[in-house]
Amino acid sequence: MNVRVAEQVDALCQLAHWAAARGWVPATSGNFSVRDPANGHIYISCSGLDKGRMTPADLLELDAQGRVISGLGKPSAESGLHVVAYRMRPKMRAIAHVHTIWNTLLSARSVDAGHVEIAGYELLKALSGVDSHAHAERVPVIANSQDYSMLARELEEALERNPETHGVLLSAHGLYTWGTSVAEARRHLEALEFLFEVECRRMQGSRE
Amino acid sequence: MNVRVAEQVDALCQLAHWAAARGWVPATSGNFSVRDPANGHIYISCSGLDKGRMTPADLLELDAQGRVISGLGKPSAESGLHVVAYRMRPKMRAIAHVHTIWNTLLSARSVDAGHVEIAGYELLKALSGVDSHAHAERVPVIANSQDYSMLARELEEALERNPETHGVLLSAHGLYTWGTSVAEARRHLEALEFLFEVECRRMQGSRE
Amino acid sequence: MNVRVAEQVDALCQLAHWAAARGWVPATSGNFSVRDPANGHIYISCSGLDKGRMTPADLLELDAQGRVISGLGKPSAESGLHVVAYRMRPKMRAIAHVHTIWNTLLSARSVDAGHVEIAGYELLKALSGVDSHAHAERVPVIANSQDYSMLARELEEALERNPETHGVLLSAHGLYTWGTSVAEARRHLEALEFLFEVECRRMQGSRE
Amino acid sequence: MNVRVAEQVDALCQLAHWAAARGWVPATSGNFSVRDPANGHIYISCSGLDKGRMTPADLLELDAQGRVISGLGKPSAESGLHVVAYRMRPKMRAIAHVHTIWNTLLSARSVDAGHVEIAGYELLKALSGVDSHAHAERVPVIANSQDYSMLARELEEALERNPETHGVLLSAHGLYTWGTSVAEARRHLEALEFLFEVECRRMQGSRE
Repeated sequence: MNVRVAEQVDALCQLAHWAAARGWVPATSGNFSVRDPANGHIYISCSGLDKGRMTPADLLELDAQGRVISGLGKPSAESGLHVVAYRMRPKMRAIAHVHTIWNTLLSARSVDAGHVEIAGYELLKALSGVDSHAHAERVPVIANSQDYSMLARELEEALERNPETHGVLLSAHGLYTWGTSVAEARRHLEALEFLFEVECRRMQGSRE
Repeated sequence: MNVRVAEQVDALCQLAHWAAARGWVPATSGNFSVRDPANGHIYISCSGLDKGRMTPADLLELDAQGRVISGLGKPSAESGLHVVAYRMRPKMRAIAHVHTIWNTLLSARSVDAGHVEIAGYELLKALSGVDSHAHAERVPVIANSQDYSMLARELEEALERNPETHGVLLSAHGLYTWGTSVAEARRHLEALEFLFEVECRRMQGSRE
Repeated sequence: MNVRVAEQVDALCQLAHWAAARGWVPATSGNFSVRDPANGHIYISCSGLDKGRMTPADLLELDAQGRVISGLGKPSAESGLHVVAYRMRPKMRAIAHVHTIWNTLLSARSVDAGHVEIAGYELLKALSGVDSHAHAERVPVIANSQDYSMLARELEEALERNPETHGVLLSAHGLYTWGTSVAEARRHLEALEFLFEVECRRMQGSRE
Repeated sequence: MNVRVAEQVDALCQLAHWAAARGWVPATSGNFSVRDPANGHIYISCSGLDKGRMTPADLLELDAQGRVISGLGKPSAESGLHVVAYRMRPKMRAIAHVHTIWNTLLSARSVDAGHVEIAGYELLKALSGVDSHAHAERVPVIANSQDYSMLARELEEALERNPETHGVLLSAHGLYTWGTSVAEARRHLEALEFLFEVECRRMQGSRE
């Protein structure tokens, strides 16, 4: 692991601790990864880990096809989704996956629509490439499944059809988001979760 | 107390501090215990303790029948429920009992039904033995009472009738959950409380 | 100040920091005091203080009639309410007054009724002298006013008419609660605030 | 930078960290500034900064017209709003701008009315010059826009028409508030955000 990747791994651990402190990766859920652009290898949290205590030693190194190259611990069943997301978004360097109260509620109520559309909020500008609150962010919602090959195909399709989206929701499950650095992935994560909470509270308040 | 038990006691104190920081054991409520599998003895928080400051010295040692063997402080009236839960779940090593906003609300509204059923959430997989979000977790709800002998019998019956459940609710009172280690009990606690909050917010949002 | 009182003052500062961390004394609101049983003197936070930084030096010493004996800073307009509460509850040693989201909401909606009645929750047992969830705690609600002499008289009357109550609410303002020690006052504070939140969320959820 | 200004800059960094810990400046949003009364220069957080890590080195020095005098980093697009606010409120020494769940919800639902009016809460007295809960605080709500020259003009107009207001909301965007010191700006910030949350929860609870 080169210096630049090691720095991103450290930043990833800090992101994991920060998310854990907010209750966004409850009960060892969620996962986090970075990619080394030099060889496409992925460093990803192993399965069953309390993310509040994640250290670099808790990461597995995978090759670009998702095969374990080094590291202890069991790969998460969702590693394949990271592999797909990195393949579909070649510039991406970091991925965060979290289970929050609000992304769970919003994805569950939006699965039939197939997406969540959020527009009109200034905080949308925290998403890379967005320069106006008038932007409508369409976040695809994939029906949850335990068939991870199928989920991987649906994620691929969702990313293909929504080239501009900054995240993908799995219904009653959680959010995948990413960035060209850990800092950007964290910014997207924090912005999307803020928007999910506002949107969900607005819907409940207006009983629309 | 052997080394393995001492480690679990330390982990139990950390769990208590973590729960206290989240407001889950308000006003000295809640209690926590571990069991020594060698002799069946139970180490349990004494009555009236601020769980945010719990140390190993604040635990009482009980025998398998619930009689105090050693330790200062007054046994909690709910010690008998721990004794029953350990007897009914022989593999269990740790029990957590917490009073939260969401378990109070959900148990109060579900007492007539006699249980809470939660299905469709990915986080259900944080419960040991559950491998799909499609799993329906049925958490029995016992009507609260100050007759602890009666509560003990009802808890016994609830555990007998629901061999797969990961927790039991007392109405407008709180949750009992457990695990084969403190880490597993904490995972079950965090998962169930997340699910209670999501479920309660969903019900309120949809006014179903 | 004798050793015992100095200990209570230290505990009071910790209570203030804890309440501040929860957002219960926003924008320098709220106040805290202890009484020395030897001479009836009251040590109370001065006006305009950020309670998250309260130290013993920020307390004023008042005599039993509320006259400043020593200390820097300006007395709070609400000092007179502490004086009345100590006179009406001779065994009390500590008082906490906080402004929270939930006590503000609940007191505002209950001012016409003149009280909040809370029953059926296990956490009621955290209130001294209460031994069953079936207990109905009646917390008087006084209409808020800027006439502190009138408020003092109404507080006196409320405490006289409700000899068993553990707290008094001022509408759209906040809670006064107390104890025979700082630890007991904190337990009453935490229990009542938990109950206010549960009760308010229940009402909003059921739209009763 | 003289000693007095340096102290305010330190206090501003602490305020930024405190706001970040509460989730009030998510995803590098929000900004903070102080003004040196000697020469009218403004020290303001640069664009794209994680406010949880803000240090004095992250501030830009602007002259009274908003031109960059010193400092690294890119000026925020909203610097012009700070310039206008300081010009319209000559005694002000500090400004805070935050994006919170509740100010987003409340400003979005109040944009057609053109203002939020909050009355009847004791915490209103935390706003300088307000001495009664009966005070009605009218906070103007400006429709959000990406045309910052227009926003600056509308902010100027809002401040002119509402000489007593302690804050201005941008719809679905956030709050601007200020004070004669960082401490006062923080007190106004905390009071207004508390009031926004109470008011929004009250509206949702009563479905008025």
